[in-house]
Amino acid sequence: MTADASVKPELRANVPDALTLAAELIRAPSVTPNSGGALELVARRLEASGYHVERLTFDSGGVPIPNIYARIGSGSPNLCFAGHVDVVPEGDPAQWQHGPFAGTVEDGKLYGRGAVDMKGAVAAFLSAALACGRPERGSLSFLITGDEEGPALDGTVKVVEWLKEKGEVIDHCVLGEPTNPGAMGDAFKVGRRGSLSGILTVKGVQGHVAYPHLADNPIPRLVKLVGELTAAPLDHGSDFFPPSNLEVVSIDVGNPVFNLIPAEATARFNVRFNDLYSLETLKSEIIRRLDGAGLTYDLAFQPGASQSFLTAPGPFVELVADAVEAETGRRPEASTSGGTSDARFIKDLCPVVEFGLVGQTMHKVDEATPVADLEVLTRIYSRIIARYFAAFA
Amino acid sequence: MTADASVKPELRANVPDALTLAAELIRAPSVTPNSGGALELVARRLEASGYHVERLTFDSGGVPIPNIYARIGSGSPNLCFAGHVDVVPEGDPAQWQHGPFAGTVEDGKLYGRGAVDMKGAVAAFLSAALACGRPERGSLSFLITGDEEGPALDGTVKVVEWLKEKGEVIDHCVLGEPTNPGAMGDAFKVGRRGSLSGILTVKGVQGHVAYPHLADNPIPRLVKLVGELTAAPLDHGSDFFPPSNLEVVSIDVGNPVFNLIPAEATARFNVRFNDLYSLETLKSEIIRRLDGAGLTYDLAFQPGASQSFLTAPGPFVELVADAVEAETGRRPEASTSGGTSDARFIKDLCPVVEFGLVGQTMHKVDEATPVADLEVLTRIYSRIIARYFAAFA
Repeated sequence: MTADASVKPELRANVPDALTLAAELIRAPSVTPNSGGALELVARRLEASGYHVERLTFDSGGVPIPNIYARIGSGSPNLCFAGHVDVVPEGDPAQWQHGPFAGTVEDGKLYGRGAVDMKGAVAAFLSAALACGRPERGSLSFLITGDEEGPALDGTVKVVEWLKEKGEVIDHCVLGEPTNPGAMGDAFKVGRRGSLSGILTVKGVQGHVAYPHLADNPIPRLVKLVGELTAAPLDHGSDFFPPSNLEVVSIDVGNPVFNLIPAEATARFNVRFNDLYSLETLKSEIIRRLDGAGLTYDLAFQPGASQSFLTAPGPFVELVADAVEAETGRRPEASTSGGTSDARFIKDLCPVVEFGLVGQTMHKVDEATPVADLEVLTRIYSRIIARYFAAFA
Repeated sequence: MTADASVKPELRANVPDALTLAAELIRAPSVTPNSGGALELVARRLEASGYHVERLTFDSGGVPIPNIYARIGSGSPNLCFAGHVDVVPEGDPAQWQHGPFAGTVEDGKLYGRGAVDMKGAVAAFLSAALACGRPERGSLSFLITGDEEGPALDGTVKVVEWLKEKGEVIDHCVLGEPTNPGAMGDAFKVGRRGSLSGILTVKGVQGHVAYPHLADNPIPRLVKLVGELTAAPLDHGSDFFPPSNLEVVSIDVGNPVFNLIPAEATARFNVRFNDLYSLETLKSEIIRRLDGAGLTYDLAFQPGASQSFLTAPGPFVELVADAVEAETGRRPEASTSGGTSDARFIKDLCPVVEFGLVGQTMHKVDEATPVADLEVLTRIYSRIIARYFAAFA
């Protein structure tokens, strides 16, 4: 049985293609935290196709951030497509060959901020899902946020809380972040490393460099502490993850002159860590290393840390890989590398995998996706929907 | 024979006391590079007392900086008093109990920017020298600059060049910088350590912290280099000098975010070094230590470095110490500690020692000197002049 057979025909008229939808979304300038009308556009498309749409606005940061959760069908299994319509700033528009918010198609490519990350994928799964209509058994749903590229405080994390409170069950989720390094079919993500940031501060006593006995330079102690922190690898990787990695991303004193011993020195670091650590055991390891230096220091872990997660191998992961392979002819790598994504929140609800476009131009000037990739992605999402309800419903 | 007996009486009328002169100089606001009329005031006082005054203006920095070299008498021995009339900025005038440029006397203290560093000492040696008039044999001279507290490019260093070109001989010099840490008679300076500054830069490749294999973090390498630089003391001091000392005064990356590996990291350092090093051997030692890390780095030594110097023990040094002891009842310590001074330029001409007021309030709000200290200092300078011509003429 294919999904087509399970869909009510009256809801299938006039389904727009992914290219039309993606261009429409690009023309709604939604640089975080501005919604630019992009999310409302998605909401209306879904409502027009029979979805029940919840508009969820959160404003813990002082700016109201729109999100939506939309569903069609009833009960389990509930397959959710997740994504964001906010985009990173366009930078200097003069450096773009094509207007960042024009949604121009040229030489087979759709140009514009968000083409790849990730209005293109939102358009592809909208087009795929609208074409499928209402599942005969189970539900199709959408979790779309306007706060992924910003502080991510009023986005998916809040929608997930709301879903839990409402007792809304999502059984499986596909997140449309760009996952292919070079070409469609390269890779999909089945997990992400966690991320933990910290600020290490060492205090001293300011004074003239000619009278060091009257001062206390914090820099040699900070350098020693940074040495302890980075002396040995955190681990050598696990079955599904690359090694955890700590990077000292900045050391700053800000002393503009040569004749002054400074009063304070700080180092900032970030750790991307695998499933061999929890946030707690990682913090303990960092403190253990620093304490090894036998020096006094201040350490402030930053808010927004995330655990690593893995969606275990199994039928759902295989189903997604099969759909990718069927359209691209290549078995995608099950990757856990790279940065964080909203999957770190969704994993608290259900198994989540990520598959989207090719990431090469994301966050860059003249961000663009080949129209052919958009079409391939739409067909992959269609296959996922069809196979999902065939296998799980 | 005393100096008094060698002085022509017609030049001794109406010699102002040090307090009057110091207050007058404080009221001429001469924050570097402004002359504020202070130097012209000195020049006219000296001309009125029969000195030949050379006004020497240099402007390599774009601002004309006045200096004077003044002399009375003929030939050797030529005893020179050196000093500066420029001052550091007053900061926030509202924080001063007494106007920074008012020259107020209250409770036995003269208040104002430069009271200690070093308009007070200039006033004291002017008063002492004018009272002595023209030496019977030899010369008394003054080298007064308006650029000691600033970049010091158009001050004493240029006057010394000019003196060399003219073939003008100075036999001995007393520089009036504040040398007493706590009370008059504590210490005089017979040498200064050298100073060398450098900037150490390590380059890397910028990238996202989640993809460290695509980036190259310069921070661990900079930290290693700084460790090599500071691992061992440069020396343990010499007969006349404290140990050489290297301070890393700043490390800067300037990366405001946690998810970016930076492209460059820099450390700034300053060395105060004794007579066990020349500038060349010190630079070699620094490079030897850095090369020990086996890493690539950029090193830029800064302009304005100075050698250490020592005025060897002998009759001139003893004469100054005797004069201080005679007025204060204490044998001053022959010090080589502390920062640099214009003595680093004068030492190329002749033996130079430094003795002045008590430094505690210098560069601070409500800079002040007890009037009694001004009087003691004037008497010490008078004794130095008298004993000098008695011993060397």
